[in-house]
Amino acid sequence: MYEFTAPFQSPSGSPIRELFKYLAEPGMISFAGGYPASDLFDVDGLQQASARAYQDTSQCLQYGPTDGLPRLKHELINLMARRGVPCAPSEMVVTTGSQQGLDLLLRVLLNPGDVALTEQPAYPATLQALRLQQANIVTIPVDAHGLDVDYLATLLASGTVAHPKLLYTVPTFANPTGATITRERRIALLKLAVQYEFVLVEDDPYGDLRFSGETVPSILSLAAEVPGSRDWVVHFASLSKIVAPGLRVGWTIASAEIARRCVIAKQTVDLCSAPWTQAIAAEYLADGALERHLPRITAMYGRKCEALCDALQLQLGDALQFHRPEGGMFVWARLNAAGSGGASGMDASALLQRAIENKVMFVPGNAFFADKVDAASLRLSFAAPGIADIEEGVRRLKRAYGA
Amino acid sequence: MYEFTAPFQSPSGSPIRELFKYLAEPGMISFAGGYPASDLFDVDGLQQASARAYQDTSQCLQYGPTDGLPRLKHELINLMARRGVPCAPSEMVVTTGSQQGLDLLLRVLLNPGDVALTEQPAYPATLQALRLQQANIVTIPVDAHGLDVDYLATLLASGTVAHPKLLYTVPTFANPTGATITRERRIALLKLAVQYEFVLVEDDPYGDLRFSGETVPSILSLAAEVPGSRDWVVHFASLSKIVAPGLRVGWTIASAEIARRCVIAKQTVDLCSAPWTQAIAAEYLADGALERHLPRITAMYGRKCEALCDALQLQLGDALQFHRPEGGMFVWARLNAAGSGGASGMDASALLQRAIENKVMFVPGNAFFADKVDAASLRLSFAAPGIADIEEGVRRLKRAYGA
Repeated sequence: MYEFTAPFQSPSGSPIRELFKYLAEPGMISFAGGYPASDLFDVDGLQQASARAYQDTSQCLQYGPTDGLPRLKHELINLMARRGVPCAPSEMVVTTGSQQGLDLLLRVLLNPGDVALTEQPAYPATLQALRLQQANIVTIPVDAHGLDVDYLATLLASGTVAHPKLLYTVPTFANPTGATITRERRIALLKLAVQYEFVLVEDDPYGDLRFSGETVPSILSLAAEVPGSRDWVVHFASLSKIVAPGLRVGWTIASAEIARRCVIAKQTVDLCSAPWTQAIAAEYLADGALERHLPRITAMYGRKCEALCDALQLQLGDALQFHRPEGGMFVWARLNAAGSGGASGMDASALLQRAIENKVMFVPGNAFFADKVDAASLRLSFAAPGIADIEEGVRRLKRAYGA
Repeated sequence: MYEFTAPFQSPSGSPIRELFKYLAEPGMISFAGGYPASDLFDVDGLQQASARAYQDTSQCLQYGPTDGLPRLKHELINLMARRGVPCAPSEMVVTTGSQQGLDLLLRVLLNPGDVALTEQPAYPATLQALRLQQANIVTIPVDAHGLDVDYLATLLASGTVAHPKLLYTVPTFANPTGATITRERRIALLKLAVQYEFVLVEDDPYGDLRFSGETVPSILSLAAEVPGSRDWVVHFASLSKIVAPGLRVGWTIASAEIARRCVIAKQTVDLCSAPWTQAIAAEYLADGALERHLPRITAMYGRKCEALCDALQLQLGDALQFHRPEGGMFVWARLNAAGSGGASGMDASALLQRAIENKVMFVPGNAFFADKVDAASLRLSFAAPGIADIEEGVRRLKRAYGA
C-alpha cells in the first residue's frame, strides 16, 4: 500500500460535505448547504443562451485559451464596469468557479510556513486551501460590521506576527457570518495592505445578492481612493450564486503580473475551464439576462431571509442571538449560555445531533474556525429551502433545542 | 510590487503555448498543436446529448458531487469495462480533463524533492506539473517500442536513485513520440512497480485512436496478470481526444484510497468539474454515440497520418528519420546530422524559424526534454490540418530545410 507522506494531510475532507449524507434522508429540511436555490435558476434564459452559444460549435467543443474565452472576458469586463471597476483583459483570469481562483493564487504566492491572515470565522474551503499550501494561518476576529480592522492594525503594528503574504476576506454578506465590512473599514484595510505590503484577497460571490440596506462598494473598486493599493488587491467573483454553479464560471481580477502567473499555473492545472459553459455564460451575459434575473433572485432571498429571521426570533428568540443580514445566503447565530426553558449551555454540535433526529440540519460553527473555536455558533442558510420549509424547519429546531 | 518567492518559478509558461501566437498568421499550416480536428467533432450527436441532458436542469445547473456526476461515472465505468477494466465508483474521480487528474495526484503523492521518474521525451505539461510540485525528475529514455524498461530496471537495481514515488508514461501512441510500449514491457513495468513500490502512472488519452496494427491492452488492464500491481497503477483517461476537449471531461482510476485523497484535494481545488458538460458527456456515452463516432475519427486520423508520413518520406526522406505510428496524433522525427543537399546539422529550433517564414509550424523537440535535450528532434501533429494542407505543409518544410 502506498505510504502517504505528502503535505496534503486532511483525509477527512470538508466538514460540511461530511454532513451531506444526511441530506438524502426523507423529509429532511436543510439550512446546511451553501447551494443556491435550484428553483430560482433561469432555466429558459440559460437554455436560450446554450442554443446561441452552440451556433459557434468550435468555440464550445475545442480547447480554449487558458485565461478564458475572449468573448466571455469581454462580457465579464462589462459586468465589472457596471460594478464600478475598470479592468483590462490582462488583469482577468476565468477560473473553474472562484474556488479555483483561490487555489491558483495560493500556489503562486505562498511558500510553506508563510503567514496568511484570514477573517474568523471563515469559509472552510479557504482554510483547507491554506492548509494544503502549508500556510501559517493567523486569524482576525469578525464582528457585526465584518473584519475587526483595529485588531488587525494593532497586530500588524506589534510586530509579533511575521510579514503576512496575504489577507483573505469575504467582505460582503460573508460566509459564514452574513456580515458586511463597512466602507470605512475597507479603506483602512486598503491602507494597511499598502503599508504592510500584503495581498488583500476579496472573495465576492454574494455581493450582488443585496435585498436591503445600501450598497457598499467592493474593496477592489475602493482601491481607486487609496493610492498604490490596486496592485495589492486580488478580487474573486463568480456566476455560481447569481446564475448557476453548474457553469463553474468564476473569475479573478489581479495585477497583470499576478494574473499572468495564475494563468501559467492554470496551464498545468487543467489547461482551461470548460469552454462550452464559458460560451453559454458569455451569451447569457451578452443578452442582458443577468440584469433581468437578479432582481427576482434577490427579492426571493430577501423574503426567505426574513422568514428565517422572523421564525428564529419567534421560536428561539431566547435561545439564540443573531444579526439580520442585508444580503447573501447566510444567518450566523450563537446559542445563549442559558436559554430560557431550553437545554442551557448546549453547544451547536450537540444541537445538530438532536436536530438531525428532528429532520432539520444546519452547520455547527466549529467548521469555520482555524483556532479558538466558538462551539456555541452555527450557520443557517436560507437560500435553498422554501418559505414553508423554513418555518417548519425552525419549529423542528425549537423541538431539538427543547425550548 | 509583490515579490514572488513561491515555488512556482516558471513565469515563461508552456513552450508550446508560446508558439500559438504564430497560429494566427494568415495561411499558416500547423503541425504544432495537440488539438483534435475541429471538423471531426460530432456536432449533431453532441447537440442531441446536450438537449437530453438539459431535461434534468437541476443536474446541469447545480453543484455536483466532487468525484463526478453518478450518471457520468456509471457510463465511464461501462466504457472502462469495454476496455477490459472492471472498476468501482470509489476508484474513479471525474476531473477537468485528465490534466487535472495529474495535478491532483501529484499534490496528494509528492513532497518537495521526491523522485519522479518520467519517460523522455515527455509531455511538457507533465514536466511543468512535476516542477510545480518541486519533484526531482529522473528521466528514462524511450525507443520505438516505448519506455526502455531494461534501462529502468538497471537504474532501479543500481540503487543510485533514491526511492521513486512514481513513474509517468503515455504508453500508447505517446505524446510526443507516437510510440506504443509493448505488452511484454508493460508486464515488466508492473512487476517493477510492485517490487520497488512506486506508483505507475498511465496517461491514456490516445488509446482509442488506433488506425493500424493490433491493440495492446492498457497497463491498467494488464495489472490483472501481475499479482499485487493493481493498487500501484493510476490511470488517466479523457474524452478530449475522442469526443471534444470543450467538455473538459477526464477521469482518474486509482486505488480507492488514492482516489479518496484526490477527491478531498479537488474539494479545495474547484469543488467539482462543470456538471453541465458532465451531464452532456453522460448522455452522449449512454446513447452509444461514441462507439458510432470513433471509427470515423480513427479512419480520418489514419489517412492524415499516412499523408504526413508519405509526404515526409517523399520530400524529406534523406533529411529526416521517423517511425510511422499506429495511432494517436503525433509523428516524432529527427533531423539527420547531414541531410543530402540540405542545411546539414541544422537543429529543429533553427528549422522552426525558417519554417515559420515559410508558413508552416511544428514543435521543436527541446520542449519535451527535462534534461539531455535532443536538439535534432521535432514533433509533427497530423490531427488538425486537412490532407491537402498536410501535403502542402511538408512541401513548405522542405523549402525551409533547403533540401
